[in-house]
Amino acid sequence: MMDLTGLKEEVLQQARLAHIASKQLGVTSAEKKNQALLAMAEQLWERREGIFAANDLDVAEAREAGQSESRIDRLLLHEKRLEDMIQGLRQLMALPDPVGEVTESFTRADGLRIEQVRVPIGVIAMVYESRPNVTVDAAGLALKAGNAVILRGGKEALRTNRKLVDAMREGLTKSGLSAEAIQFINRTERDSVDILIQARGLVDLAIPRGGAGLIQRVVQHAQVPVIETGVGNCHVFVDEKANLEMATEVVLNAKTHRPSVCNAMETLLVHERVGPAWIRQIVAQLQERGVEIRGCDQTRLWLEQGGIGGNLPILPAREEDWEEEFLDLVLAIKVVKTLGEAIEHIDKYGTKHSEAIITDDVQAAETFMRRVDAAAVYHNASTRFTDGFEYGFGAEIGISTQKLHARGPMGLRELTSYKYLGRGTGQVRI
Amino acid sequence: MMDLTGLKEEVLQQARLAHIASKQLGVTSAEKKNQALLAMAEQLWERREGIFAANDLDVAEAREAGQSESRIDRLLLHEKRLEDMIQGLRQLMALPDPVGEVTESFTRADGLRIEQVRVPIGVIAMVYESRPNVTVDAAGLALKAGNAVILRGGKEALRTNRKLVDAMREGLTKSGLSAEAIQFINRTERDSVDILIQARGLVDLAIPRGGAGLIQRVVQHAQVPVIETGVGNCHVFVDEKANLEMATEVVLNAKTHRPSVCNAMETLLVHERVGPAWIRQIVAQLQERGVEIRGCDQTRLWLEQGGIGGNLPILPAREEDWEEEFLDLVLAIKVVKTLGEAIEHIDKYGTKHSEAIITDDVQAAETFMRRVDAAAVYHNASTRFTDGFEYGFGAEIGISTQKLHARGPMGLRELTSYKYLGRGTGQVRI
Repeated sequence: MMDLTGLKEEVLQQARLAHIASKQLGVTSAEKKNQALLAMAEQLWERREGIFAANDLDVAEAREAGQSESRIDRLLLHEKRLEDMIQGLRQLMALPDPVGEVTESFTRADGLRIEQVRVPIGVIAMVYESRPNVTVDAAGLALKAGNAVILRGGKEALRTNRKLVDAMREGLTKSGLSAEAIQFINRTERDSVDILIQARGLVDLAIPRGGAGLIQRVVQHAQVPVIETGVGNCHVFVDEKANLEMATEVVLNAKTHRPSVCNAMETLLVHERVGPAWIRQIVAQLQERGVEIRGCDQTRLWLEQGGIGGNLPILPAREEDWEEEFLDLVLAIKVVKTLGEAIEHIDKYGTKHSEAIITDDVQAAETFMRRVDAAAVYHNASTRFTDGFEYGFGAEIGISTQKLHARGPMGLRELTSYKYLGRGTGQVRI
Repeated sequence: MMDLTGLKEEVLQQARLAHIASKQLGVTSAEKKNQALLAMAEQLWERREGIFAANDLDVAEAREAGQSESRIDRLLLHEKRLEDMIQGLRQLMALPDPVGEVTESFTRADGLRIEQVRVPIGVIAMVYESRPNVTVDAAGLALKAGNAVILRGGKEALRTNRKLVDAMREGLTKSGLSAEAIQFINRTERDSVDILIQARGLVDLAIPRGGAGLIQRVVQHAQVPVIETGVGNCHVFVDEKANLEMATEVVLNAKTHRPSVCNAMETLLVHERVGPAWIRQIVAQLQERGVEIRGCDQTRLWLEQGGIGGNLPILPAREEDWEEEFLDLVLAIKVVKTLGEAIEHIDKYGTKHSEAIITDDVQAAETFMRRVDAAAVYHNASTRFTDGFEYGFGAEIGISTQKLHARGPMGLRELTSYKYLGRGTGQVRI
């Protein structure tokens, strides 16, 4: 029998410690935070043997449990990957501290001066799945923006994450900051997530990062504010006035450059006036690169008439195919009669992540960009650009697909709130 | 027996209609939205007799139910109050349209240009209590910022609200916009609220406006993003280095100018070095204005020694008094030994709304402003300034006390989100 009271007390105690640490961190100088990032990086490197040993155990257990190779690969740490994490912390040092920035100011007629100033959010609870790099990225970003963080990673990576956190906490201590600013939930019970995301007054924001199931669960159970991230059912629409060479380049890039990430294209929409020839050649090129196609009736008819798909039959696209984020070398294709039909399809099946139109018709492009409701909408460019590094944020904690607080790539600035500071000489309200 | 399935279908159908209307409204010009605001204002005036007749019935029912005079007064509409609402809509016309504003832009080395552009949030569900002016204010603000709105007001004002909404919808129709952009939940079951705030994909934001109970309920049941508003347990701290004349002015203003609103002071914190004389005179002045005092032991001792409170005994402040938002002529007073103790008290009992320090010590003021975690922190000014109109926003839908998306007074800009628009010439990710 699980001791739920004990679990609750344990998690809430960690949240309390994080809350207290966040008060200190909120008024810590940029210099001191950078020293802490450096010490964290150093400790990760110094303790690498212990980290790899823990990772070996996690990987062995995953292998025993019969996990797929792609999941095992996501779990696996080696020297290069650890170096990348460490490099990430060092890069954060070079970024400007968002805290304290005056974003607005005005002086009232009565002389009361009011400034809007960036402040940390406070305590951020990060709920994520297997990849251990999130442990280090999230802790570093939260810290640089003045926030305490509570990390609740996946069960498969428990040993690895624990060692990573031990090293980072040691770095905090060595630099004179409270180690409690990074908390690690050393429990695998699902209830530990619920307790965390219901800890109103202690946790200021929960960020789920992972598959649709995880995000759905957090959204349904949370009582603290949540930012949903990363589910991307992205579309490219090839308009009747498209430059078809450009369309080919963008489609190949959006689908095959890195199919496992959220900003990859999952459905290709093609204006019917583009016609069969282009569809036949793009499908041939996609198939050469190993992409499996699910087509609408029109697509399948044109391909059959063109003799495409003889060896590799084109499956009919079902309702689920329009909905699914394949995250793999699979692509659904739909022929639409109008720009409006393309927009409606995206409105119905999209996840408000990244959408693109390929066209030389500026009017059509502007209509698409105004009407499509997504974090990022592109004209004549790949959906793959929606990324904190590509946007020049220098770092990224996730890509928000909701409309409150932050939309699209979330960097340091998106991990802050603001407050108003009023400086007066005795002003009262009349 | 209530038919829950029917209720659910009814509410969701309204949410769907609002969702569709929001698509149109999101790309409607400022001029057209202003015409609609004007037509809404005209219809409210034209239909005033019907509105007052409905309000008479609501008021009569409240009286029969034995409601307090203050609640009845909040419910009551008369010509002057309707004129104020209409004036509010006209003032919105003069404010700049936030939609379409480019808030950031940059061009990548590869020539892809990215702009961050303000867009409406979409569909806003407003859940509120008795005052009918919220019906008109919320609809006007939502519309001007390009959002559809679903209004779920209090049961006591049902007839009044319905008539107000009928008039505004008629105004929308007359101006050529879809009446569905303003939805009114014509049901009093509590479940109608739950259905609304769980309608993911249809409702983009829920704003509860009312007492702590209502807000708590919405936060616990919502699955759509929520912005908490308006619970204000505000403090004024009179520091040892305070200009005591200024302290008197600010304290009287913060407590008695309008005690029923969220930015009024509820607890006075006094540095012990300020001493008994000032406390005696401020309490005497507060009592003259009808304020009931709840004091800590030190406060009561000093007042007794000074012979204050002979006729009107000073009650001891209990734990609940530090927690309570009195919204009335009641004030808790606590003597603290240090600035740190004042900040800790606010951290423990405050609701992150508005806090003030009175001091001539710039160092103490800066410490207070940095460390106190609230939407607005004032140095030498009254807490009463936290208000959309006082901040020059021209309008206000509420005061956010959470840290995500918007903090403090929420005007038009806070009712928008943003999206990224990328304009390229065929850029792909390498």
